[in-house]
Amino acid sequence: MTIKISIDCMGGDFGPSVTVAAAVSFATREPDVEFLLVGQEAILQSELKKLGAQNHPRLSIVHASEMVEMDDPIEVALRRKKDSSMRVALTQVKDGLAQACVSAGNTGALMAVSRYVLKTMPGVDRPAICSILPNQNKQPTYMLDLGANVDCEPLHLHQFAIMGSALVAALENKPRPTVGLLNVGEEDIKGNDVVKRTAQLLRADHERGLLNFYGNVEGNDIFKGTTDIVVCDGFVGNVTLKAVEGLGRFVKTTMTDAFKSNPLNMLGALIGRGALKQISKTMNPSNYNGGSLLGLRGVVIKSHGGADKYSYEWAIQRAFDAVKNDVLARITTSLAELMPVPAEASTTSSGSTEQ
Amino acid sequence: MTIKISIDCMGGDFGPSVTVAAAVSFATREPDVEFLLVGQEAILQSELKKLGAQNHPRLSIVHASEMVEMDDPIEVALRRKKDSSMRVALTQVKDGLAQACVSAGNTGALMAVSRYVLKTMPGVDRPAICSILPNQNKQPTYMLDLGANVDCEPLHLHQFAIMGSALVAALENKPRPTVGLLNVGEEDIKGNDVVKRTAQLLRADHERGLLNFYGNVEGNDIFKGTTDIVVCDGFVGNVTLKAVEGLGRFVKTTMTDAFKSNPLNMLGALIGRGALKQISKTMNPSNYNGGSLLGLRGVVIKSHGGADKYSYEWAIQRAFDAVKNDVLARITTSLAELMPVPAEASTTSSGSTEQ
Repeated sequence: MTIKISIDCMGGDFGPSVTVAAAVSFATREPDVEFLLVGQEAILQSELKKLGAQNHPRLSIVHASEMVEMDDPIEVALRRKKDSSMRVALTQVKDGLAQACVSAGNTGALMAVSRYVLKTMPGVDRPAICSILPNQNKQPTYMLDLGANVDCEPLHLHQFAIMGSALVAALENKPRPTVGLLNVGEEDIKGNDVVKRTAQLLRADHERGLLNFYGNVEGNDIFKGTTDIVVCDGFVGNVTLKAVEGLGRFVKTTMTDAFKSNPLNMLGALIGRGALKQISKTMNPSNYNGGSLLGLRGVVIKSHGGADKYSYEWAIQRAFDAVKNDVLARITTSLAELMPVPAEASTTSSGSTEQ
Repeated sequence: MTIKISIDCMGGDFGPSVTVAAAVSFATREPDVEFLLVGQEAILQSELKKLGAQNHPRLSIVHASEMVEMDDPIEVALRRKKDSSMRVALTQVKDGLAQACVSAGNTGALMAVSRYVLKTMPGVDRPAICSILPNQNKQPTYMLDLGANVDCEPLHLHQFAIMGSALVAALENKPRPTVGLLNVGEEDIKGNDVVKRTAQLLRADHERGLLNFYGNVEGNDIFKGTTDIVVCDGFVGNVTLKAVEGLGRFVKTTMTDAFKSNPLNMLGALIGRGALKQISKTMNPSNYNGGSLLGLRGVVIKSHGGADKYSYEWAIQRAFDAVKNDVLARITTSLAELMPVPAEASTTSSGSTEQ
């Protein structure tokens, strides 16, 4: 089965030089993929030519005259740039021409335009961004929300838990993945009001056998792999994700400096290069690029804005895997089972709060 | 000048086996320190005997019959255990018998008992916990609050910025340290309502020349060293701190496993051991142990509950340095200049919200 993916080629800090190159590279090694490259035709054509891929049978260009800039307010992306590469790429999914869309554009804009074009799943009040982080059990920890919703009510965190569970069940083939609620301590009395009230909702679901709620988890549990899923609001999630990425880069610099500091250390690095490669593979944040926008009626993967070609290919991989594992249908089914549309949800679905 | 420090010897996961051992070790290498070891006399005496330090001239025992357990609610620590090692250790500071107190006890209890025994500085509504993290400029990044206040209003974050500035000015000899406000993006339009309103307060101070406000910073800026100080609420700070500690441990395990995975890698590690030592020194979270409880009328340092002897010595070092650099007087002076007691602050000082 060929999987069709639309790429918002103009999005991200580096635009087509990264997005087109990543798509070409991915298509070269994966025969079951077809790409719709969305953006300014002339630019994309010249990029394909540079890569000798202008006649690739599984790459086609879909022209879009505008682009969403990284600092465009949501309103501009949503109401003024109706022919943006982001919007046109999402429309391919809506129209059934692609099964997933990948974009490295402005998160707030991508979420807003995705909601507008694709709509949310029944019962979902606010879509969330879910990514994976590595853990000591050599398994992925799925964490959400990572920045779509900077102010959350318990009902939203509850929905994130359900969507995360459904995603992990589909992608990892775990029928009852564990859910942890990110907090400042494990005990029930810890935390702020929103977190305490969320725990009550999750415990109730656990007692009814609907969710496998572990309880509160702390920041370090993300990397311990205490639970399959870690739920938090988008402010905490975004800050935490960027902090650990920052530490990752700091570790890398520190290691490079140390092993280059004198000839003996350089020799050690040369002899132990297998170990260094292994460490770099586990720790490289590029290998974890690609956040799923969960709760939409379509597969949308958000790449890091600053992704390079290698990193962007990982985001494409997530889109490919999501379609291959039929994630969308499985989440929809789980949601229908777990989340009868609540009255509150349908009245407060006015919008994502991120700007 | 001899610096007198009281130690809550019963606090922390390991109690006297860590706290007394750390004090003995610190006293052995630092002639200008004197310790008041607070806790159950018989236990402390036996611990000192074990270490051959029962007659050390700069170590004395102050008996306290009770102890605050790690899971004691604040009310118990505050109202029932009036002869706890934590409270007696803090009372030494209040009574002028010690100039600083170190405790690895339950954070919420330590903050509450410290407030009760020592009181807050004039104009300070909520004390905060401030610790350092390493950054790529080979400088410390001071971050607060790290868990004392899980719900914060702009006025609290504003006070944290002022207290953090005063601390860094005193400890790092930087008259105008830069302050960053932790957020999900750099732009002014980003973030939740509390953060946006805090930015307004900080900008106003910056314009009046009272604070050196840089603007919003993101999680990765902590390790980039973009600003000297990073301000956030205690929920975000605690989660972020524990997440980066967790990642730190994960990196360590990954490195150890990789360098032990085959003889060649082991040889590389042996030859490059200088580099590995250098990396471990920079990355070891123990070297950053010891959070200052800022805003109290006394120097109180909170050690990690799980600290080992080496790590606890670092917390003692922070207490020692704070007294040596006259941090308390300098913060009080800065606060008086920067923060005229606002009407709102004095009416909402009912208590820390952490449980």
